[in-house]
Amino acid sequence: MHGVYGKYLDVNLSDGTIADYAIPESWQERFVGGRGIAARLLLEELPADPSPLGPDNLLVFATGPFQGTGIVGAGRHVVAGVSPKTGRVADSYTGGFFGHELGRSGYDGILVRGRSADPMILVLVDGQARLEPAGDLWGAGTGETEETLKKRYPGARVSSIGIAGETLVSQACIINDRTRSAGRPGLGAVMGAKRLKAIVVRGGLDKPLHDPARFATERAEYVTQFTDKATQEGWKYGTAGGVVTLSEMGILPTKNFQEGVFDDAEAISGVRMYDTILVKPDTCAGCPIRCKRTVRTSFGGRDVVPEFGGPEYETTAAFGSLCMNSDLDAIALANQMCNDYGIDTISVGVGIAFLMEASEKGLIDETVAWGDAEAVVRITEQVARREGLGGRIADGLDRFAAEIGADFAMTIKGVELPMHEPRGKQGLGLSYATTPRGANHMEGLHDTMLGMDSPSPEIGVDRAYDRFTLTDKAAVAKTYEDLRSFDNSLVLCCFTTRSVGPRYNYPSVRSLLEAATGRALDADEMLRIGERNYALMRLLSGRAGHRMSDDALPARFARPLPRGASAEHPVDPDELRSAIGDYYRARGFDEAGPTAETLERLGMGDCIRFVVGG
Amino acid sequence: MHGVYGKYLDVNLSDGTIADYAIPESWQERFVGGRGIAARLLLEELPADPSPLGPDNLLVFATGPFQGTGIVGAGRHVVAGVSPKTGRVADSYTGGFFGHELGRSGYDGILVRGRSADPMILVLVDGQARLEPAGDLWGAGTGETEETLKKRYPGARVSSIGIAGETLVSQACIINDRTRSAGRPGLGAVMGAKRLKAIVVRGGLDKPLHDPARFATERAEYVTQFTDKATQEGWKYGTAGGVVTLSEMGILPTKNFQEGVFDDAEAISGVRMYDTILVKPDTCAGCPIRCKRTVRTSFGGRDVVPEFGGPEYETTAAFGSLCMNSDLDAIALANQMCNDYGIDTISVGVGIAFLMEASEKGLIDETVAWGDAEAVVRITEQVARREGLGGRIADGLDRFAAEIGADFAMTIKGVELPMHEPRGKQGLGLSYATTPRGANHMEGLHDTMLGMDSPSPEIGVDRAYDRFTLTDKAAVAKTYEDLRSFDNSLVLCCFTTRSVGPRYNYPSVRSLLEAATGRALDADEMLRIGERNYALMRLLSGRAGHRMSDDALPARFARPLPRGASAEHPVDPDELRSAIGDYYRARGFDEAGPTAETLERLGMGDCIRFVVGG
Repeated sequence: MHGVYGKYLDVNLSDGTIADYAIPESWQERFVGGRGIAARLLLEELPADPSPLGPDNLLVFATGPFQGTGIVGAGRHVVAGVSPKTGRVADSYTGGFFGHELGRSGYDGILVRGRSADPMILVLVDGQARLEPAGDLWGAGTGETEETLKKRYPGARVSSIGIAGETLVSQACIINDRTRSAGRPGLGAVMGAKRLKAIVVRGGLDKPLHDPARFATERAEYVTQFTDKATQEGWKYGTAGGVVTLSEMGILPTKNFQEGVFDDAEAISGVRMYDTILVKPDTCAGCPIRCKRTVRTSFGGRDVVPEFGGPEYETTAAFGSLCMNSDLDAIALANQMCNDYGIDTISVGVGIAFLMEASEKGLIDETVAWGDAEAVVRITEQVARREGLGGRIADGLDRFAAEIGADFAMTIKGVELPMHEPRGKQGLGLSYATTPRGANHMEGLHDTMLGMDSPSPEIGVDRAYDRFTLTDKAAVAKTYEDLRSFDNSLVLCCFTTRSVGPRYNYPSVRSLLEAATGRALDADEMLRIGERNYALMRLLSGRAGHRMSDDALPARFARPLPRGASAEHPVDPDELRSAIGDYYRARGFDEAGPTAETLERLGMGDCIRFVVGG
Repeated sequence: MHGVYGKYLDVNLSDGTIADYAIPESWQERFVGGRGIAARLLLEELPADPSPLGPDNLLVFATGPFQGTGIVGAGRHVVAGVSPKTGRVADSYTGGFFGHELGRSGYDGILVRGRSADPMILVLVDGQARLEPAGDLWGAGTGETEETLKKRYPGARVSSIGIAGETLVSQACIINDRTRSAGRPGLGAVMGAKRLKAIVVRGGLDKPLHDPARFATERAEYVTQFTDKATQEGWKYGTAGGVVTLSEMGILPTKNFQEGVFDDAEAISGVRMYDTILVKPDTCAGCPIRCKRTVRTSFGGRDVVPEFGGPEYETTAAFGSLCMNSDLDAIALANQMCNDYGIDTISVGVGIAFLMEASEKGLIDETVAWGDAEAVVRITEQVARREGLGGRIADGLDRFAAEIGADFAMTIKGVELPMHEPRGKQGLGLSYATTPRGANHMEGLHDTMLGMDSPSPEIGVDRAYDRFTLTDKAAVAKTYEDLRSFDNSLVLCCFTTRSVGPRYNYPSVRSLLEAATGRALDADEMLRIGERNYALMRLLSGRAGHRMSDDALPARFARPLPRGASAEHPVDPDELRSAIGDYYRARGFDEAGPTAETLERLGMGDCIRFVVGG
């Protein structure tokens, strides 16, 4: 087998044993890597009903064929396991350098089982793995943890949890490279419940490639697609570069999704960040796009330092417009706190906006005013430390909303919404409603890009789509989900594969994949891989109770946005229900997910035993 | 001041500081001790909205004037703090010897603040307190913990958490003396979140009594009330002695409260226990009643040993009739597991019965049959270890019920119902619905005893009451709640105060209190103390959002029991609503609890600042 090592490191924290887990070639062929192998592994190894915070839950850190090869977009890995928010498997993607290092470790990924009595660190260095006591680091921030472990293992990369993960906070994430986050499913709490403080990886091995010379040539050629002036200019202001445009389009989530226009959008934009607090752009392994930020500033007398990066678009909108907060310094400080405490910026921002609305509506005693920058920072810290008002949402936003009788927690299946407005991206709304992971913007393509500049004929998208309607969206939503699922199987950054427009990069990606693995794919098989791996995820969620009837959007979206360029376009609940029906038919799902026939069609006959009720 | 030391030990786990907390004399005069001082302290020191599992939450271990004096019924203490189940303060009472020792420690109680980074033990020996690292005991059962600490501190008493508390399991309790539990509010998880593994107390001081000679005389006289043959015979079979009678009365909770008659009641009765597995009765400090059990048996090849005690009535019914399980050995093993893992038997039993009903109704995949003794044991262990199906309810029964769409979780305000059937004790149902603590059988008196044998004229109860109706129950429910609240302020066992019948013991108790504290109480002031301290609890719950509209019973009770001597007596929801209104009026509460006028009437003017909205 080429492009992969064909094995996972299999670590049992309950008894301290470490073994190799051989990945069958038949899995590799059909599911390729990343999401696919992680999901297949979980389907095989996860008990039927694991308690998310119990020892039965599994955590998988996975790579694909490209990790460790240095191609653009592959500085990335995926973490999967049962989310404490949904009670179902979620996969969460994160950039940086840890994935690249894991791709050079001799293992395609790591499977973590069980639960340790004492805090531990998993060390995988130069192909050798061991567990070490972590008592000295328990309670430390991810920054201190990473610094300590990098001194101990020079050249290594670190993935760790902060105090929030240790104390099972719902919003806890897993931070790698100090600035990147496997975010919203709350997998930091799973790692904390297992008492695994950190994973240290130092590779040094070369990925076994099918045709190394061809790969090297194509890799060098591929990178030039991203070094041209247009790309560089396009990403100059980072992912938050489009904040003002989104507000102008009326789809910048504002005031807890009550509005889509934020009058102060400019004040929190990527341009403003560039002009003021940016130190320099940052990057993931091998990527010249440099969409990441590092910033230096201060807020309320507290320093924000470049070592913790800078706010992404999601972070900017969640702590900014969603809370009516126009203070970029406060956003930067909240971002830094999230990275150090190990909590997810989207989840926390949605929580704070909820509290602001609850305060306005008199459902909580404490006053938290819209736009109060100091409150954003204070509550962020409170969530991580389980203190004060912020601490009240640390056991889950939905739970607290039920406690105070509020119906405006912006969540789907317990997962906080990301910063994309379904009323102005209705096809994405369909993905939001149906994905096994709960509200997720990384599952499908955004309507704003659907055939916008130029169609993508090889995947059958030959026209533009109206972003305000669900009509005819089911099939194209599925297509783009399958494409994105293919990205996630390679664990490639979607900013590099570029699903639409003149830079549609999939032919190059497939050629690189052939050089790496020896396997040529056409566009159909590419989509099929994505479809298979989506089906694996849906088998897992179906097993954990996911039914079509669960698929819905928060009630708020049935009302129109009050103003701006996306006003007067509510998501009609009947249309959504109808589109969900079309979508399930397009996927060949029944209420509970993939049918036996669908799995046969996808060449996944061995998974029929996992069909719910099958 | 006499009868108390007038100070609490004030321990801050966040910074490791330990101080004395002086209890104002004005508190002592009006609130006496136990529940009263604990609630007053919490009202003063608890932030407005603490996260139950965060460092802001407080844990109070409290005694009253009688702890440490050796009188019958005072081998007891109370633990209070914000419950993770309700988000509101709950006080939980537990017997044994720890309370007696704490009463001889030089402190009336312990206030625990903050959260430690590393597991700690609080040691209070010979009047000196210190924190010690507990890393070696983290992960150990309460049995091993107690054994280790008693070797280290001979003669000390230990209160500790097991693995369940450490891992924040919803059902986690605090175990003292290996066999006694501060049970259902989930305060074990609070202790775990604080990373406090255990409290070790060795006293040796004498309580400063007002008139030691008189006290000694009266104490000696008082004990004879419990050494007579009738009392000894009455308690011969322990608290589970009445199982068959309850079934005959149609109020033995059976099949998750679907029935009140268990055909196999005899097989799990206290008589059967006595005839088979009982080793000998056990007792709390100074008590000749000996209602506790120690048993030896085995189930499924696993030994049940006397060191972990034996099942109480609540445990017997929860693991027995409620689950249709007639295997006493399995009940005894499940009881032992609960004590060692540190989980509450009622909470777990109600959870298992729920799972059995969910399985029968096809809401979960796993088959868990009614009456499956092995499943009772297996799921009990799973809850504590967060494994398998049991692990699914470890984050809260209500939460899991919502996840699978079940409406038959037998809880009130998130707290599992104890083993008393409100359809056949409708006055108790009123207390269930209204108590700030959620379903609680220790708040009021049971209708089955209301004036049954003989009235209690000094508290105005001069006739018998129909147990099947709510008519005229509001006032008498309040009276008995106030009486029980007085018990809880003295932290006296209600089996010894005996609220009704020829042994109505309150005149003796008040005389003992006068000897201890120098303060004579009449019956009115006795009830007023109870009423004040109930009001303190309700101020706390009101502050945390408790409103009259929250007070209700599970829907199941609006349907009649299908057979037996209590059939055809549903709790009428309209009558309940009306009785709740009467009850609030009788207490002088508005929607949110005590009004300023009521507090004035009770001599609690200093608490008016805590009135909600006041």
